[in-house]
Amino acid sequence: MPAKKPRNAFYAQSGGVTAVINASACGVIETCRKHKNKIGKVYAGRHGIVGALTEDLIDTTKESAAAIRALRHTPAGAFGSARYKLKKMEDNPAQYERLIEVFKAHDIGYFFYNGGGDSADTCLKVSQLADKLGLPIQAIHVPKTVDNDLPITDCCPGFGSVAKYVAVSIREAGFDVASMAKTSTKVFIMEVMGRHAGWIAAAGGLASEKEGDAPHIILFPEITFDEERFCARVKECVEKFGYCAIVVSEGVKNTDGKFLSDAGLRDAFGHAQLGGVAPVIAQLIKSKLNYKYHWAVADYLQRAARHIASKVDVDQAYALGKAAVELALKGHNSVMPTVVRASQKPYKWKLGIAKLSDVANQEKMVPRDYITEDGFFITEKARRYLSPLIQGEDYPPYKNGLPRYVELRNAPVKKKLDKTFVL
Amino acid sequence: MPAKKPRNAFYAQSGGVTAVINASACGVIETCRKHKNKIGKVYAGRHGIVGALTEDLIDTTKESAAAIRALRHTPAGAFGSARYKLKKMEDNPAQYERLIEVFKAHDIGYFFYNGGGDSADTCLKVSQLADKLGLPIQAIHVPKTVDNDLPITDCCPGFGSVAKYVAVSIREAGFDVASMAKTSTKVFIMEVMGRHAGWIAAAGGLASEKEGDAPHIILFPEITFDEERFCARVKECVEKFGYCAIVVSEGVKNTDGKFLSDAGLRDAFGHAQLGGVAPVIAQLIKSKLNYKYHWAVADYLQRAARHIASKVDVDQAYALGKAAVELALKGHNSVMPTVVRASQKPYKWKLGIAKLSDVANQEKMVPRDYITEDGFFITEKARRYLSPLIQGEDYPPYKNGLPRYVELRNAPVKKKLDKTFVL
Repeated sequence: MPAKKPRNAFYAQSGGVTAVINASACGVIETCRKHKNKIGKVYAGRHGIVGALTEDLIDTTKESAAAIRALRHTPAGAFGSARYKLKKMEDNPAQYERLIEVFKAHDIGYFFYNGGGDSADTCLKVSQLADKLGLPIQAIHVPKTVDNDLPITDCCPGFGSVAKYVAVSIREAGFDVASMAKTSTKVFIMEVMGRHAGWIAAAGGLASEKEGDAPHIILFPEITFDEERFCARVKECVEKFGYCAIVVSEGVKNTDGKFLSDAGLRDAFGHAQLGGVAPVIAQLIKSKLNYKYHWAVADYLQRAARHIASKVDVDQAYALGKAAVELALKGHNSVMPTVVRASQKPYKWKLGIAKLSDVANQEKMVPRDYITEDGFFITEKARRYLSPLIQGEDYPPYKNGLPRYVELRNAPVKKKLDKTFVL
Repeated sequence: MPAKKPRNAFYAQSGGVTAVINASACGVIETCRKHKNKIGKVYAGRHGIVGALTEDLIDTTKESAAAIRALRHTPAGAFGSARYKLKKMEDNPAQYERLIEVFKAHDIGYFFYNGGGDSADTCLKVSQLADKLGLPIQAIHVPKTVDNDLPITDCCPGFGSVAKYVAVSIREAGFDVASMAKTSTKVFIMEVMGRHAGWIAAAGGLASEKEGDAPHIILFPEITFDEERFCARVKECVEKFGYCAIVVSEGVKNTDGKFLSDAGLRDAFGHAQLGGVAPVIAQLIKSKLNYKYHWAVADYLQRAARHIASKVDVDQAYALGKAAVELALKGHNSVMPTVVRASQKPYKWKLGIAKLSDVANQEKMVPRDYITEDGFFITEKARRYLSPLIQGEDYPPYKNGLPRYVELRNAPVKKKLDKTFVL
């Protein structure tokens, strides 16, 4: 009796990319390649789930082992990501049926979806529907989000590297402002990402190891912005330390619950498109305190900064990609591998597993006891949680003074369906 | 006959600090320490020239060899810098006389001033006046400026590291935007420093090694901003490459010769305090082309980014500090050591010497033939000049996931003068 032909795998990246999402892709693809008797080809979605809907698949078997290996040190989404949230099943079943149709046409038996809370939900629904339609697909979610807001897992790949970037950057900028403060800039404001959860802003606090170190103030989305108390604190820092370095989360809200700065745009998930709270804070400081200021907005630089990635983060991103495949091979479905903190000191982590039904559409905020009582800094408890996540440097290779990041061939898979699909 | 007691040296940092100005300080101090028979103690000005005027001197002999060595990998100004430009000699001779008085009181025979064009001018005047007042001081300027706008020297310490930061960052952000462009952000704008000269913006161009690579557009202060042609170029890039990554210099001016964004503040040198041209460009793209955008303002992060410093830059910064002392020991006065490009391929550099009278108050702009005819990119000639300056990585040591930068004791020298001086 001939062996059953192994079914193919589909891998896609979703939402905002990170410095290490490709390390997860590397983990998925390298592990699949080691189990060719059980998993056929790995197809990637060009631009994430959009590639699946439009039958625009990438044949990763056309990539060399060296190219796939280089994904481990390459930031952003090598196959293209997408901000494209599927509608609710009952509102648009055709979308889900189309996915199953494409997967059926290409004999997809494994669905590895690499994203945040929204994509965990998509992953779950695809698995449920496939089952119902008689095409069993093992759907495994690979966690990823710089926002670090997924539940159950101790941390999310992508976060540790942003955290390291932010802590390193505010330390360096702090040294700069300290040098200038006597005759020039007294206040420096660095805006970081974090729509609703202040994990990234919190990480800036790691740069301060003793009294007076930058940053002096952190503004969290979890804490309502109080103009008066904030200005008083800035003044206190300038008088005490000679200068004041501030990390502000893009998601900081005022007493009306409105974002301090809202560009008015919304992304496909309905999230407000933010940016520019730093100049708002700077203007406030100028008008109320008349200090000379400088401000920076890190934006994409922070989440793309593979050059200063955390080794722990890179290792976890790879391990979770690998674990996703291994869970599938063990017969798991509708699950997500997680990071479990096995030991605090020395820091040790291991892999765990979570049901997607427990993960989808949930946000994990910074707990109140991670923030000092006055709302302007992190506590020791937060520091104990955050510090291990930025440990170790994992420098990419350089050529001509610049990091060598890989660009894949991304060869298309021949289409099999007549019908096209309008997004 | 007893040997003549060696006279002391004064060292100060001036103007905006850099990732490698402390490497020059390290070169100065370590070299002085090797010639104790000729140079006594090295005193540093606390907050640059302000420390000299107020007789607030730092005794660097109180610092260990290890602490001084660590300056080589520590960004910003370890003794404090100052934005404080001395008035013209004829407008305020008292300032210069005070400097000489302080130097006389502390037996200063060597004046090492680490700064840009303004401080080269100060250095020259101090030397001239000291001579006239019968207290000969050998004044040597140590070049420093991220703006890379000093004449004669092939390049300026501080620039190579900003150049590397900008090229690395726009490459990384370019990968990010490319991943997102299908369904989300299509245009990314990164604002960099460069008041009048576009060297830093130009360096971003190194990230693009083949057609389609980020960045696609560079906006220079040397080229008048033409809204219509710019928008047409952005559209062309988005249509051709799927996205558009832009590096914009803070000093870009419109057809009226006004900065696109001017915060209205001026610093002590009378330079406009800029920041925030990126959001102006973003808004333009939104309103004229309706593309989704993201923008970043690197600000101090770029010039403080010791974690991604250029090895060539660090080596040159140290060598110039060392050379300043060696020139003084050879009897030179009113000069500045320079970097001379000895060979283009392979890149080799050696040290030269320039008269301060040829250096002071001059700005070296990006030559027109370093910018493409359309004004939106760098030429091959520019690339040949810029590329060697970002070569090599010179990572600082890390502890707990963060770079270990040194903070000196900065012990004060006992004052000898009765009179205080009001700035």
